[in-house]
Amino acid sequence: YFDVKKFVIAPFDRRYRIWQTFLVVLVVYSAWASPFELAFPKVSTGSLMPVDLIVDAFFGIDIILTFFVAYLDKSTYLLVDDHKKIAIRYATSLWFPMDIASTLPFQSIYKIFHGKSARGQVFGFLNLLRLWRLRRASELFSRLEKDTRFSYFWIRYCKLICVTLFGVHAAGCLFYWIAAHHKVAEDTWIGSQISDFENRSIWLGYFYAMYWSIVTLATVGYGDLHPMNDTEKVFTIGYMLFNIGLNAYIIGNMTILIVQSAMRTLALRDAIHQVLKYARTNRLPEGLKEQMLAHMQLKFKTAELQQEEVLEDLPKAIRSGIANHLFLKIISKTYLFENASEDLLVQLVSEMRAEYFPPKVDVILQNEMPTDFYILVSGAVEVLTIKNRVEQTLSKSKPGDMQGEIGVLLNIPQPFTVRTKRLSQLVRISHHHFKEIVQSQKDDGKKIMENFIKHL
Amino acid sequence: YFDVKKFVIAPFDRRYRIWQTFLVVLVVYSAWASPFELAFPKVSTGSLMPVDLIVDAFFGIDIILTFFVAYLDKSTYLLVDDHKKIAIRYATSLWFPMDIASTLPFQSIYKIFHGKSARGQVFGFLNLLRLWRLRRASELFSRLEKDTRFSYFWIRYCKLICVTLFGVHAAGCLFYWIAAHHKVAEDTWIGSQISDFENRSIWLGYFYAMYWSIVTLATVGYGDLHPMNDTEKVFTIGYMLFNIGLNAYIIGNMTILIVQSAMRTLALRDAIHQVLKYARTNRLPEGLKEQMLAHMQLKFKTAELQQEEVLEDLPKAIRSGIANHLFLKIISKTYLFENASEDLLVQLVSEMRAEYFPPKVDVILQNEMPTDFYILVSGAVEVLTIKNRVEQTLSKSKPGDMQGEIGVLLNIPQPFTVRTKRLSQLVRISHHHFKEIVQSQKDDGKKIMENFIKHL
Amino acid sequence: YFDVKKFVIAPFDRRYRIWQTFLVVLVVYSAWASPFELAFPKVSTGSLMPVDLIVDAFFGIDIILTFFVAYLDKSTYLLVDDHKKIAIRYATSLWFPMDIASTLPFQSIYKIFHGKSARGQVFGFLNLLRLWRLRRASELFSRLEKDTRFSYFWIRYCKLICVTLFGVHAAGCLFYWIAAHHKVAEDTWIGSQISDFENRSIWLGYFYAMYWSIVTLATVGYGDLHPMNDTEKVFTIGYMLFNIGLNAYIIGNMTILIVQSAMRTLALRDAIHQVLKYARTNRLPEGLKEQMLAHMQLKFKTAELQQEEVLEDLPKAIRSGIANHLFLKIISKTYLFENASEDLLVQLVSEMRAEYFPPKVDVILQNEMPTDFYILVSGAVEVLTIKNRVEQTLSKSKPGDMQGEIGVLLNIPQPFTVRTKRLSQLVRISHHHFKEIVQSQKDDGKKIMENFIKHL
Amino acid sequence: YFDVKKFVIAPFDRRYRIWQTFLVVLVVYSAWASPFELAFPKVSTGSLMPVDLIVDAFFGIDIILTFFVAYLDKSTYLLVDDHKKIAIRYATSLWFPMDIASTLPFQSIYKIFHGKSARGQVFGFLNLLRLWRLRRASELFSRLEKDTRFSYFWIRYCKLICVTLFGVHAAGCLFYWIAAHHKVAEDTWIGSQISDFENRSIWLGYFYAMYWSIVTLATVGYGDLHPMNDTEKVFTIGYMLFNIGLNAYIIGNMTILIVQSAMRTLALRDAIHQVLKYARTNRLPEGLKEQMLAHMQLKFKTAELQQEEVLEDLPKAIRSGIANHLFLKIISKTYLFENASEDLLVQLVSEMRAEYFPPKVDVILQNEMPTDFYILVSGAVEVLTIKNRVEQTLSKSKPGDMQGEIGVLLNIPQPFTVRTKRLSQLVRISHHHFKEIVQSQKDDGKKIMENFIKHL
Repeated sequence: YFDVKKFVIAPFDRRYRIWQTFLVVLVVYSAWASPFELAFPKVSTGSLMPVDLIVDAFFGIDIILTFFVAYLDKSTYLLVDDHKKIAIRYATSLWFPMDIASTLPFQSIYKIFHGKSARGQVFGFLNLLRLWRLRRASELFSRLEKDTRFSYFWIRYCKLICVTLFGVHAAGCLFYWIAAHHKVAEDTWIGSQISDFENRSIWLGYFYAMYWSIVTLATVGYGDLHPMNDTEKVFTIGYMLFNIGLNAYIIGNMTILIVQSAMRTLALRDAIHQVLKYARTNRLPEGLKEQMLAHMQLKFKTAELQQEEVLEDLPKAIRSGIANHLFLKIISKTYLFENASEDLLVQLVSEMRAEYFPPKVDVILQNEMPTDFYILVSGAVEVLTIKNRVEQTLSKSKPGDMQGEIGVLLNIPQPFTVRTKRLSQLVRISHHHFKEIVQSQKDDGKKIMENFIKHL
Repeated sequence: YFDVKKFVIAPFDRRYRIWQTFLVVLVVYSAWASPFELAFPKVSTGSLMPVDLIVDAFFGIDIILTFFVAYLDKSTYLLVDDHKKIAIRYATSLWFPMDIASTLPFQSIYKIFHGKSARGQVFGFLNLLRLWRLRRASELFSRLEKDTRFSYFWIRYCKLICVTLFGVHAAGCLFYWIAAHHKVAEDTWIGSQISDFENRSIWLGYFYAMYWSIVTLATVGYGDLHPMNDTEKVFTIGYMLFNIGLNAYIIGNMTILIVQSAMRTLALRDAIHQVLKYARTNRLPEGLKEQMLAHMQLKFKTAELQQEEVLEDLPKAIRSGIANHLFLKIISKTYLFENASEDLLVQLVSEMRAEYFPPKVDVILQNEMPTDFYILVSGAVEVLTIKNRVEQTLSKSKPGDMQGEIGVLLNIPQPFTVRTKRLSQLVRISHHHFKEIVQSQKDDGKKIMENFIKHL
Repeated sequence: YFDVKKFVIAPFDRRYRIWQTFLVVLVVYSAWASPFELAFPKVSTGSLMPVDLIVDAFFGIDIILTFFVAYLDKSTYLLVDDHKKIAIRYATSLWFPMDIASTLPFQSIYKIFHGKSARGQVFGFLNLLRLWRLRRASELFSRLEKDTRFSYFWIRYCKLICVTLFGVHAAGCLFYWIAAHHKVAEDTWIGSQISDFENRSIWLGYFYAMYWSIVTLATVGYGDLHPMNDTEKVFTIGYMLFNIGLNAYIIGNMTILIVQSAMRTLALRDAIHQVLKYARTNRLPEGLKEQMLAHMQLKFKTAELQQEEVLEDLPKAIRSGIANHLFLKIISKTYLFENASEDLLVQLVSEMRAEYFPPKVDVILQNEMPTDFYILVSGAVEVLTIKNRVEQTLSKSKPGDMQGEIGVLLNIPQPFTVRTKRLSQLVRISHHHFKEIVQSQKDDGKKIMENFIKHL
Repeated sequence: YFDVKKFVIAPFDRRYRIWQTFLVVLVVYSAWASPFELAFPKVSTGSLMPVDLIVDAFFGIDIILTFFVAYLDKSTYLLVDDHKKIAIRYATSLWFPMDIASTLPFQSIYKIFHGKSARGQVFGFLNLLRLWRLRRASELFSRLEKDTRFSYFWIRYCKLICVTLFGVHAAGCLFYWIAAHHKVAEDTWIGSQISDFENRSIWLGYFYAMYWSIVTLATVGYGDLHPMNDTEKVFTIGYMLFNIGLNAYIIGNMTILIVQSAMRTLALRDAIHQVLKYARTNRLPEGLKEQMLAHMQLKFKTAELQQEEVLEDLPKAIRSGIANHLFLKIISKTYLFENASEDLLVQLVSEMRAEYFPPKVDVILQNEMPTDFYILVSGAVEVLTIKNRVEQTLSKSKPGDMQGEIGVLLNIPQPFTVRTKRLSQLVRISHHHFKEIVQSQKDDGKKIMENFIKHL
């Protein structure tokens, strides 16, 4: 659907999508590295520096790319692929300066200008600007949530775990940073446990920070590690307030996921429960109750109800297309519509409905008003007549046979009962629609009556 | 409904169901024993060994059985009972190798080949493969959830408790295993409390492990037991992250259960509240308000509303069957339909509706348009006329009597008011449907008018 | 409604209700005293003994009373007041033996037979049988929840608080009982803090028990009090598992309460939001948008929508009664229906609907098809005509005047626009129903046309 | 809309709203200062005294103002601006004495009468009366929640944070007050950590109180600070019970916010999922499936469904106004309605509906019954004919062209297929309504047929 100008990339282009997904992988690294480098500045000028520079380069390339990506206009739903419009839109939005600021490698720039690495805290905090990139992860998740190829449950679950892990990691790093900058090392949460912690391994420190962070988040609070000085207490107050919100967020999300997954089961239980109650209060015989239950369970399995809803929402032309595909072949093979014009058939099929019937269920009941007639698509039904309260089997129908057309064409109460022998699919045509359509096509009407009389 | 070939078992066979339920009992044992034997390897080669072998044997039998169990095809909803198809389906699925791997008694096999029990950790972990059997418990629960014979609330509640207990048990055993394999016994969570814990009773250790596990899960965290070394801290981090999810899962499930159970009460409250509000804002007299409230409460008790919905979803033939059962006897005994043909009656009943009326409520109001007439099924009503604003009781009706048929047949405003004397069930026939049906049966129409004139 | 036999009490009798509510007050005492007397057996043979005996006496009286209380049959919804049936139903149910067992004062009976108080634990546990009385509190709450005179929110809130407080109290008492029966007093949760705690004041012990109980329930777990020996640990495991469930129950209940209270606000927001969006995407002029918003907000205030739903669910006779009350007086005073027969008016009112219109809103639009006409009930409207795109005010209507009847009676497009001047209530009569009703009453039709021509 | 008498302020007056919002800012100060002054009485007679007096003065002014603010009568929805009624309503309500009591500066009054500041606790508690002002904040939030200009999520979120912060602050201050009034300073929660805490800095004390408060609220409970004496334990019991409720409240609110925000995504997923399932079970060709999906996604983007619902709820005159605005211009430019009377057009537009169609979707299908015809508003469609199963493009339509009118006017099956070329908006006119309207306007009918024949 989306043809764009030369040198412009459609946002739905497969290759651009892959590039975006690749960038999200780099975002995960940035999300981990930014707080980590704040807490342990040694690594930011050491082992992680080249990795950081490469990652920054990729995001730099993306900034340039963005000037060539078409966008969807929000009011007309049309794709804008004009170079100038794209450029103006990006350059004047908030995103552009933030993207730039989160990509510049401040420390390396400083080093180039001054010839040496700075040890000041400022670069650690400037590094945190890279967390702006997290918006990409957030966008990815909200796109995946709408993508039915993936389970909503697991996408949402992953998102929750990512948010939680990032929260724990960031809080842990910040807490370590506070301890590392306190004057008296013994008076810190970690220093009171491990003497001379600053010269120990980076991983030991990171590890203790994570442990404290998670004990606090999970509100377990064993008490073996706890804030010792005022700065730590202030930070812990903030972190705990945030945790109350995060916990509520996790629980709220979990609730909606569980509600979603339990909905269908509950609807089925409810339907069955109502049938049973109705049968009990009206003292219906066991046979009728069984039929009702079998129908209910089949309906939920074949999700027939939902299919009706699907069709209702579609425009008429698509509905006609579907009906043609499903029923035209079947109806044109029945004896009644032999030689009927295609016009008539096309009009008929758009009013037909497919229904599943479980085994041993009455489709038509003797003596009832003829409101519909049926064509058997698959399965098997038998035609019965009830005389002196004794049922007699008259015939068995095979796919392609019609049921109930005698009542409809002669406008008399149905002369026979029709009952399924096993799971059967039948196509239903309403008496009312049939009459309406046939009346407008006199020639076809005659042919149908001829076919009918011949068949009798 | 389900006839299958010889030597093939239907999945819905009662005996197969019992066998499956019996296996779930063994699954409970496996779920408990697998982590326990990892933590306390002595028992796995000692007292629990014969039990394990017997349990494994049962699951071995089930693997063989599965080759003879028919399955339901997911696209046609038909039972497949072809031996070859069943075998291919099972053997090529992931389940088969997993079932085998979770059944082989590795330790005994090793013993047979090497002549002695191995003390390596590998068998403890191989034992954990048996947890694959938990899928059976999960299947049982999801089947029970759909079974209306059991309360959804309690099934779900049991599931929650089982999941929680298994989580606590598994975490406790794993935590003990970590302590038992740490070099310095004093530097473990249990060793710092109980000296020489490894040579104490198995149950003391299990017991401490469970206590620590549950204190952490419930996020109480007294602090009397807490992780001491790095391995324990890592494991605790993982367990706490899992606990956040488990707690959210428990709360989410509880929420949906409570919402389900409160729904009906809230709907009733809402309905009553709206009636009261309507009566207040329109300043309706007390009598009318009482009638409205009585009707509302009765409706919720008899759940009349839901019955309509039950019928709507059913195919026409079942609906007709129900109507015949409920109303044919009543209508054939009324004076109006004496000698009427069964055809007419069958058509009439399919359009009838049963309604409950609380005591002292007007069923028909003098001078209103005749839209329906009624047959009294149970209870008692009185016929009133209002002259000069004074009500006069004309007659009392007994079950089987008709109300409102004068207005309908003569097409004049209802000449009388009909009011219930106590809780009454009436069957309603719509004027519109009555006219439509009688017009198509001229003979019956004459008979009905004769009956009517005779009765006057 | 409920007349019962002599010496039989209706369950809805006001005096019986008061007695039941009084018993619930005693239940509160029992719920507190039973666990308390288990923990502190001194009080059960001391100061609380007479109170217990009096309370038991009251419940004994209730057992006798229950033999005289009619009950509602669950299948017929009729009140059964037959002495024999009532007695058989109560005596054969589970309730009777449980009521007896929870009322007998075992300790006093023992004393009478043996001449001295027993100090055995068995009486403390027999006392716990009295907790069976809690079912009365549970019944009261479920009745109150359905009673619209009380706020659902607060009833449910009280229930939650009661359940929580009882849980805390019972767990605290049980925990104290465990400590008091441990061999080494110093090795208990309380003995390690307070030496010789058993000979201290009862209230000090109760108070520590409550503190520990609540610290554990709230999952705060400071760690100043924690289980010391194995029995305490087992009990704490059980209590914490229970707490996980209780916390989830509290949160689940709170969620449903909040959802309930936020529903209405969210529905209003949603409606306004949709109007704004519709107006924006279709670029509607400001005037139309204002009219749409004003209408939406008024509708939510007057809850007009819900009123329609209230009426729909009611049987026809009640609906007619309401319509007569609301509209008969208004319509009989209009010029058009002067001298019209009451029959006609009664039929007309049952098809009338009251509507509120905000100020400056068009009720009828010039040139539109005449589908309805209106009677002004309160407020003020003006009649306008638009010529050459200029609006001219023709007249102002006062309550009792009709609008739009010219278009309806002559079956021509509405000649005038009708616009409200301030908040107005109008009664709407549908063209279709009006024609239908008037056609069946020829005489009235003539009179109406005469009135109409005279008025022109 | 709201004109009020002289010297009376409308409650919706912009300036009055600003004044109210300004007072809420002062309420925030009062909410913070009242508990703070209780805990640290030094500041209440010192640095904060002048601020308190100024704030009190503002609230004093508001009391006087309230006597001049009109109110909305709850039963008539009319604004009451009678001086006497306003004064009586305010003076006789509970609010008046509470407003007075929460405004009087008791301490300053005492000082004026006795010449010196009192140091008694009573003034600290009298100060707490100022918390009555919090009702203003509560009112502001419930008004903002209904205001669609602000995001419901963030308003509710702010409210939660404010409630939580106030709870933490008040509990912390009260807890400090308890410690400060305990006889033995070492036996208090703070005294056991900081010796001589009463003479230390106010901020240190406040800060410890906040830390303890939040550790308890978040149920972390490290155990470094915990209640030491009985009074503190009692207070902590109460605070923890309150916290259980507050936590449940936070989680419940979060759940509803998340449910709200996820609703739309879930509805879209559900719709797509059903389409896919329907296509799969019926083995529809890929082309039809694509058309269905494209339509579904477009519908969610243009929110067409909701627009229909918006219109349904509005009164007829507003609906007509909208239809005139949207469609009158378009229809009057089509060849078919040239020279047609404005009456006819006005009636037609009220039955027209706008629909969006995605690219390459069939609007009309050859041979289907003519139920609607269309006018192209924007986009482009092509007219096709299918002969011998080969599609032939006949013509391309531009905005303003009609589709399907041939079938409708001649009452024959549609002769052509109409398919969109890109995203198109079409206006649909139902065959049924068109016939009905044209039949009542004979002259216009002739003109339309003339136009039609001329065009052919």
